[in-house]
Amino acid sequence: MEKQKLVQLLKQVAQQQTTVEQALDQIDNPGFLDLNYAKIDTNRLKRTGAPEVIYGEGKTANQISGIAQAMIAQKTNIMVTRVTAKKAAEVQQQVPQLRYLAVARMLLFKAALPKLAVGSIAIVTAGTSDQKIAEEAAITAEMYGNQVERVYDVGVAGIHRLFAKLEVIRSAQVVIVVAGMEGALASVVAGLVSSPVIAVPTSVGYGTAFNGVAALLTMLNSCATGVTVVNIDNGFGAGYSASKINHLGGDVQ
Amino acid sequence: MEKQKLVQLLKQVAQQQTTVEQALDQIDNPGFLDLNYAKIDTNRLKRTGAPEVIYGEGKTANQISGIAQAMIAQKTNIMVTRVTAKKAAEVQQQVPQLRYLAVARMLLFKAALPKLAVGSIAIVTAGTSDQKIAEEAAITAEMYGNQVERVYDVGVAGIHRLFAKLEVIRSAQVVIVVAGMEGALASVVAGLVSSPVIAVPTSVGYGTAFNGVAALLTMLNSCATGVTVVNIDNGFGAGYSASKINHLGGDVQ
Amino acid sequence: MEKQKLVQLLKQVAQQQTTVEQALDQIDNPGFLDLNYAKIDTNRLKRTGAPEVIYGEGKTANQISGIAQAMIAQKTNIMVTRVTAKKAAEVQQQVPQLRYLAVARMLLFKAALPKLAVGSIAIVTAGTSDQKIAEEAAITAEMYGNQVERVYDVGVAGIHRLFAKLEVIRSAQVVIVVAGMEGALASVVAGLVSSPVIAVPTSVGYGTAFNGVAALLTMLNSCATGVTVVNIDNGFGAGYSASKINHLGGDVQ
Amino acid sequence: MEKQKLVQLLKQVAQQQTTVEQALDQIDNPGFLDLNYAKIDTNRLKRTGAPEVIYGEGKTANQISGIAQAMIAQKTNIMVTRVTAKKAAEVQQQVPQLRYLAVARMLLFKAALPKLAVGSIAIVTAGTSDQKIAEEAAITAEMYGNQVERVYDVGVAGIHRLFAKLEVIRSAQVVIVVAGMEGALASVVAGLVSSPVIAVPTSVGYGTAFNGVAALLTMLNSCATGVTVVNIDNGFGAGYSASKINHLGGDVQ
Amino acid sequence: MEKQKLVQLLKQVAQQQTTVEQALDQIDNPGFLDLNYAKIDTNRLKRTGAPEVIYGEGKTANQISGIAQAMIAQKTNIMVTRVTAKKAAEVQQQVPQLRYLAVARMLLFKAALPKLAVGSIAIVTAGTSDQKIAEEAAITAEMYGNQVERVYDVGVAGIHRLFAKLEVIRSAQVVIVVAGMEGALASVVAGLVSSPVIAVPTSVGYGTAFNGVAALLTMLNSCATGVTVVNIDNGFGAGYSASKINHLGGDVQ
Amino acid sequence: MEKQKLVQLLKQVAQQQTTVEQALDQIDNPGFLDLNYAKIDTNRLKRTGAPEVIYGEGKTANQISGIAQAMIAQKTNIMVTRVTAKKAAEVQQQVPQLRYLAVARMLLFKAALPKLAVGSIAIVTAGTSDQKIAEEAAITAEMYGNQVERVYDVGVAGIHRLFAKLEVIRSAQVVIVVAGMEGALASVVAGLVSSPVIAVPTSVGYGTAFNGVAALLTMLNSCATGVTVVNIDNGFGAGYSASKINHLGGDVQ
Amino acid sequence: MEKQKLVQLLKQVAQQQTTVEQALDQIDNPGFLDLNYAKIDTNRLKRTGAPEVIYGEGKTANQISGIAQAMIAQKTNIMVTRVTAKKAAEVQQQVPQLRYLAVARMLLFKAALPKLAVGSIAIVTAGTSDQKIAEEAAITAEMYGNQVERVYDVGVAGIHRLFAKLEVIRSAQVVIVVAGMEGALASVVAGLVSSPVIAVPTSVGYGTAFNGVAALLTMLNSCATGVTVVNIDNGFGAGYSASKINHLGGDVQ
Amino acid sequence: MEKQKLVQLLKQVAQQQTTVEQALDQIDNPGFLDLNYAKIDTNRLKRTGAPEVIYGEGKTANQISGIAQAMIAQKTNIMVTRVTAKKAAEVQQQVPQLRYLAVARMLLFKAALPKLAVGSIAIVTAGTSDQKIAEEAAITAEMYGNQVERVYDVGVAGIHRLFAKLEVIRSAQVVIVVAGMEGALASVVAGLVSSPVIAVPTSVGYGTAFNGVAALLTMLNSCATGVTVVNIDNGFGAGYSASKINHLGGDVQ
Repeated sequence: MEKQKLVQLLKQVAQQQTTVEQALDQIDNPGFLDLNYAKIDTNRLKRTGAPEVIYGEGKTANQISGIAQAMIAQKTNIMVTRVTAKKAAEVQQQVPQLRYLAVARMLLFKAALPKLAVGSIAIVTAGTSDQKIAEEAAITAEMYGNQVERVYDVGVAGIHRLFAKLEVIRSAQVVIVVAGMEGALASVVAGLVSSPVIAVPTSVGYGTAFNGVAALLTMLNSCATGVTVVNIDNGFGAGYSASKINHLGGDVQ
Repeated sequence: MEKQKLVQLLKQVAQQQTTVEQALDQIDNPGFLDLNYAKIDTNRLKRTGAPEVIYGEGKTANQISGIAQAMIAQKTNIMVTRVTAKKAAEVQQQVPQLRYLAVARMLLFKAALPKLAVGSIAIVTAGTSDQKIAEEAAITAEMYGNQVERVYDVGVAGIHRLFAKLEVIRSAQVVIVVAGMEGALASVVAGLVSSPVIAVPTSVGYGTAFNGVAALLTMLNSCATGVTVVNIDNGFGAGYSASKINHLGGDVQ
Repeated sequence: MEKQKLVQLLKQVAQQQTTVEQALDQIDNPGFLDLNYAKIDTNRLKRTGAPEVIYGEGKTANQISGIAQAMIAQKTNIMVTRVTAKKAAEVQQQVPQLRYLAVARMLLFKAALPKLAVGSIAIVTAGTSDQKIAEEAAITAEMYGNQVERVYDVGVAGIHRLFAKLEVIRSAQVVIVVAGMEGALASVVAGLVSSPVIAVPTSVGYGTAFNGVAALLTMLNSCATGVTVVNIDNGFGAGYSASKINHLGGDVQ
Repeated sequence: MEKQKLVQLLKQVAQQQTTVEQALDQIDNPGFLDLNYAKIDTNRLKRTGAPEVIYGEGKTANQISGIAQAMIAQKTNIMVTRVTAKKAAEVQQQVPQLRYLAVARMLLFKAALPKLAVGSIAIVTAGTSDQKIAEEAAITAEMYGNQVERVYDVGVAGIHRLFAKLEVIRSAQVVIVVAGMEGALASVVAGLVSSPVIAVPTSVGYGTAFNGVAALLTMLNSCATGVTVVNIDNGFGAGYSASKINHLGGDVQ
Repeated sequence: MEKQKLVQLLKQVAQQQTTVEQALDQIDNPGFLDLNYAKIDTNRLKRTGAPEVIYGEGKTANQISGIAQAMIAQKTNIMVTRVTAKKAAEVQQQVPQLRYLAVARMLLFKAALPKLAVGSIAIVTAGTSDQKIAEEAAITAEMYGNQVERVYDVGVAGIHRLFAKLEVIRSAQVVIVVAGMEGALASVVAGLVSSPVIAVPTSVGYGTAFNGVAALLTMLNSCATGVTVVNIDNGFGAGYSASKINHLGGDVQ
Repeated sequence: MEKQKLVQLLKQVAQQQTTVEQALDQIDNPGFLDLNYAKIDTNRLKRTGAPEVIYGEGKTANQISGIAQAMIAQKTNIMVTRVTAKKAAEVQQQVPQLRYLAVARMLLFKAALPKLAVGSIAIVTAGTSDQKIAEEAAITAEMYGNQVERVYDVGVAGIHRLFAKLEVIRSAQVVIVVAGMEGALASVVAGLVSSPVIAVPTSVGYGTAFNGVAALLTMLNSCATGVTVVNIDNGFGAGYSASKINHLGGDVQ
Repeated sequence: MEKQKLVQLLKQVAQQQTTVEQALDQIDNPGFLDLNYAKIDTNRLKRTGAPEVIYGEGKTANQISGIAQAMIAQKTNIMVTRVTAKKAAEVQQQVPQLRYLAVARMLLFKAALPKLAVGSIAIVTAGTSDQKIAEEAAITAEMYGNQVERVYDVGVAGIHRLFAKLEVIRSAQVVIVVAGMEGALASVVAGLVSSPVIAVPTSVGYGTAFNGVAALLTMLNSCATGVTVVNIDNGFGAGYSASKINHLGGDVQ
Repeated sequence: MEKQKLVQLLKQVAQQQTTVEQALDQIDNPGFLDLNYAKIDTNRLKRTGAPEVIYGEGKTANQISGIAQAMIAQKTNIMVTRVTAKKAAEVQQQVPQLRYLAVARMLLFKAALPKLAVGSIAIVTAGTSDQKIAEEAAITAEMYGNQVERVYDVGVAGIHRLFAKLEVIRSAQVVIVVAGMEGALASVVAGLVSSPVIAVPTSVGYGTAFNGVAALLTMLNSCATGVTVVNIDNGFGAGYSASKINHLGGDVQ
């Protein structure tokens, strides 16, 4: 609890304007819904500006359904990430309100429209195989009220494809670069734009690509400045951070 | 060159308003200063919004001096990173205009005042030993026109220290978290603020800290959303990206 | 054989109070049951305070059954860890006395009631996906006569959930923290309690989580003191060590 | 703040028995001493049962001295770990109260006598080269009020040396095993004792010892149960945890 | 665009010999076919001397078919690498012009005959299990107009097999060595021939072969000079580079 | 060809006692059978004392059958390692002379009886799960004419099991130690016997066992002298080397 | 010895045109100079087209001097790589004929002029710090009779610098790309030229650059075809292979 | 204690032929000399056939001197490995009986002549830089009564050097191969000899040699059978194991 609010609250208690119980509730409110196997963070929206997101991997269909139902009851927007088609179908039988996006492997429920940012986010991929991670980022960004420009398959092996799309990339307020194999695209893009760049290494490749480690190292060591990096295949994280940054530039009134 | 400008230019050539030589210069301008051992990127400011920065490690004092002198001649702001005190002294003998900041290990030259962003950047460290990387980030951010709030030594072993400073951290538009050892602070902070968080793993620690790899992995795998990561000990990169993001929120008029 | 006992025994031999054969048996007793493919350690209980536990992975259903039958014949408590549902069913056909716990993936047989420790063990998880490892720890601890407090899904992304449960965690004599991804919870908990903390990294996560290595490194490098660590996903080991520690505080009479 | 105390405090405020300022101080007390470059955790003793310990590596002599002086002023016991002889001498010039132990590389200040645990801690090393890490553990344990039994150089290459000392090891309530190279001693000891075992891998060895990684992996994968592990060369951490465990068995009245 | 051509073109514009539109098309031609999910690099042939190759892994049968159809329409030669038999059959239903080579796992379409190099390429394998990677290299080289000599299963465990084939290997202009396990063959061959050697580590082996990493390291550290290396299992890359080198020696007229 | 023999041969040529063709055949004899996809090393027996062994992994059933038939035609003993039950059945349909040993995963054909060594080889395993690798070693050793003593499941968690079998282990001329997890058994055994010890790390274990890497590192760093190591799960290699060593002690006449 | 020559030789022996001793000398010639601690490969020139090169690291000044003197006596060209200035001075005292190039860290002796290739080799570096490795490659290539074009500091952070030099790079017959940090330059260059590209990762960088591993992985995983790779910092190897390739295009008559 | 001896001893006690004290001494003899910081294993000679060897790294000159003096007093042969020249000089001042071998970095004391094995050990190195490890192996083998054949600098880059020395290598009963960089020599030698081969990877090389890891992996994955491996740079271990094997072939009478 912030100090200022605490001072105020204690004064109200001292002046009998607030009961001890009410004050207690505000200072000591759990701020989560307890399902025993899960504790849904109900004040995350207030604290971080976005509701809790369900990481689908390693959770059973029953667990996802239970959490989703509790959140729908609270009229919260829902995103479940990394859900296979099979698990999604099982969840949808229990929670038909959820919509499944197969390429992005996400389950969605939209209770309320987010504020729309003024600027846009460009999502650039090196190859066709990076598409599903790019879509996870794109859908995430759209769910949080951002306009997304998709620029796919412009890897450095044919760099003129990138230059042909440079205008649309430069006009975005944030750029997400999604690339596997050697991930060189991130450095090249960062050297050409003035906006912040978020790089997403993907597990595309074989042999010494080491499931994305090669691309990750490339991006962390970028000689071009202005690149920050997220975990391998973490399209969601990139979309989320990009959204936070993009909204700093102001929302549509 | 952007298409629109190119159309215009070619029309001017066709109408003899521009000579072939002038057009050539605009289409084919090198955009760098060639010192043979180095090619100083003179149009980086226009392209990315910030002048080239000199990475001091692996360059001799003579090379740094040569590059700095060429840039001073062009009245560009200069930052040289990762300069030891010994090498800095050698450079300063040749280029006395450069100021040395020992903790941040940087040489600076300020030709022009940057625009000041409205928002501020909070730089939070886990321990006292992370200070020199934090200072590299802080000085970088200040050089690019940002107000910096330093919140040092608030690691999770005594998490109440963090809570005591939460207000100042929350009031910043971007947060940089600098931590070595297990780097847990990044996740904790990201779970408590609504601004984007840039995490800087440091090489502080021993044994399985593996010179910063443990902290890096922690930060890449953060269960809290909104964290992006830079290379180990890359205070400069964090300060640079934070500045780009902070300026999106508008500049002081 | 301890020196004192040996002296006594030899004196008895010298005084013909013990025959050579009897002495031989005591000095040279094999202390195991030889099934050829397995040598069941029958004096482990006396030596280490707990009977041998069967590591189920890499053993056939027949081998597990054979070992279990031999131990049941000796009226020993049995725990078989890491048994899939399919293999468990095969074993139960041969050894119907064994009970299967699906979440913890364990087969159990309780021949005797253990002594109950006075203190309790708190088992804290970061996320819902860590549950099955936590249950392995919990069941193990309970089998060895400990009261267990389960505090699940209180990871640092919503740290107030942890604070809401701090009282129950602080009242335990030993705390087990189970966490995957970046595993930051161990450090945070250790900074808040006065009891010893055993950290269990789990293989939950993707990309640079490297199947639990990220969490392991976090826990080994904890800036908070009082944390010791076990192998990735080793719920059994954590439960076993916690039990040993908890019993040091005394048993219920 | 615990709920019960909070209820009481708020009632006192409501009844004017406590002023708003006093309540604020208790709810919102920083609990640390702010030296700017360091925030000394002054309520760690109350929270975790032991005062903050200064990690000497990566701190300057001035920083260590400043922190030590502030703690001495508060009459707290002080341990500074991983201090080279050279740095120790510099610190002692400023803070002559500190005593330096060269083998353990620690600076100590004892303001108060700790409670002495009833049980003892055995510290067992595989080789002569592991001694300095073992001493760090031993001194730490002694500072926290434990009796320490040193059993050095009993590695498995000559396992009869271990058996000769088994009685003294078995009589301890906690055992710390310190070993480099392949670290096999931890498994062997754990198979022979009934007390909890804390294993400390050391960076002793060459080639594929990988500065302690080989020993660490050995200890994490111990086939003997009851072993938990700390970071490579982390004698302090082992001593600290062992002390916590040993005190559970009761203190000398 | 090269400077000389640009000067010429601008002069033509100035002299009205070329329209602005025509000049624009030449300076700003996209040089790719945009299928949205893929941007086929249509001027790669001109730029690098070889048409774009389709990396089949991670692309759906539909995506491969779409790209192949667009390329066939342009009368380009097609190679699709790393296609499983199952996916190949699906693609062939849509694009029957493609021929599938099962061992090499490639789909091919030959629109035009390549120029044939004068020299030949020897492809040498250590074992029978390396054959499928060797065939990928061989087919690639043949598609680009090279004569290939296959020398299979001549690993160093029976080095006389290699010596028996030395003449044919020495008569080639480029040598590709394909080897898994410890990959020692590359060094031995490079010590015996005067032509450049391209080494391809394969994922053949187990345990510390680490899926080809052991062979890769061997090849990168070759004590014999004249060895360059490609990614693990990258038969295509080796065949492609070998072809480029072989054509330097001249083509059959 | 050895110098002495060469001198002799050349003299015979000079004296017309040997024709040029005959000499050529002896100097330039290929020494292998060329099946194109495989070159069977027919003089390995003479060169290294043992016929070529077929590594079954990565070869098709057809390839194995072809090689086996060619070797049977030459009346050579055959061992095929790492053959799954399914592939073995396919091979046996084509080559019914081959016998399959399921635990050791080997196909065998015995054309001739090997010489029997005077001494014996002890094969010691840490756990039941190491059995299949131990059997691969045992069968290999037996095929090469050695008496094998199997001592299974005597890991260091219950070290008295090892001591009970010490006599039989000490009476062997060579000892093979097979162990997964932390692999500590190799060091302990080597400290207790005077014969050479060959250690085989197995992929038994989980988490930081890293598929046998932990055991491998343990064995390479053994503090006990006299241990040499083979690849993870390489039972064949251990059996082969042990046989070579054991035969040095003399064969039964 | 090649078969054809052997037939001829044996015929000569049969016809008494060659004595047994002479034939022996040709068949069994050692082909090296034996200095005991070194065996100088005197027929490497004939076998591989280039004389032996001395790897200076790990050899004493005396050893280098001894080898050099023996080679000078044979009038062979000499290159000694990786020699520190200090060691070079010691060697030069004993072998004054050797010239030292400080940046490339090489000692040279030129006994004969090499044939000059028609084509040229372009050596391209990403940054100023890569210069010393580039020079090692350049000097090597020049020693072997190649014209070298140096294009330094054109990394992708300012990609227009590369485009400005594209003409000179494209006109070379082989391109060597030298880059540290993320090494992205290799992919970009390979996508723009039609000649073979040899990539040299350098150890320039910090943190996750892992002393050149990041750049190495980038280069091995290049999405652009036609790239082969050498060991980290192996300028010599790149220069050597490039020379072999360049000479394939023909020599100046 | 072996069972048979124990039976006998107990019978003697029963028959008063042996006192309790004497029996105790035999059953419970410590078998080591206790210097506190070190426990010298005095019955290792009897148990393993060789006296304890002092690993010099990580021990102070005082510790080495103390251990050596105690061993000299017992008239045991002494080997101290990995002693720098500086430390050796310090030790020799206290223990002048010790002789220092600089290349092998060993201190030696020969109290008694070992039995001489009939067979010999060949030590083969790939390069000149591997010499110091080879010498450690050679001196060790000689100390244990073996005749050593040194064959240095015959790496596979010039494989004819190896063939020229094949006769001397083949005539040895055991072969030690010492190689850094890619370590291919071990496989080649093992394919050519019938004796057991012990491979020693050395830390010679740079970049991806990773201080000997590349050579280690090569040797563990050898396609040639009959190779066992020791730790990186472990010349002592190789010499020790080779000696054990060589003595199996019988000693000179």
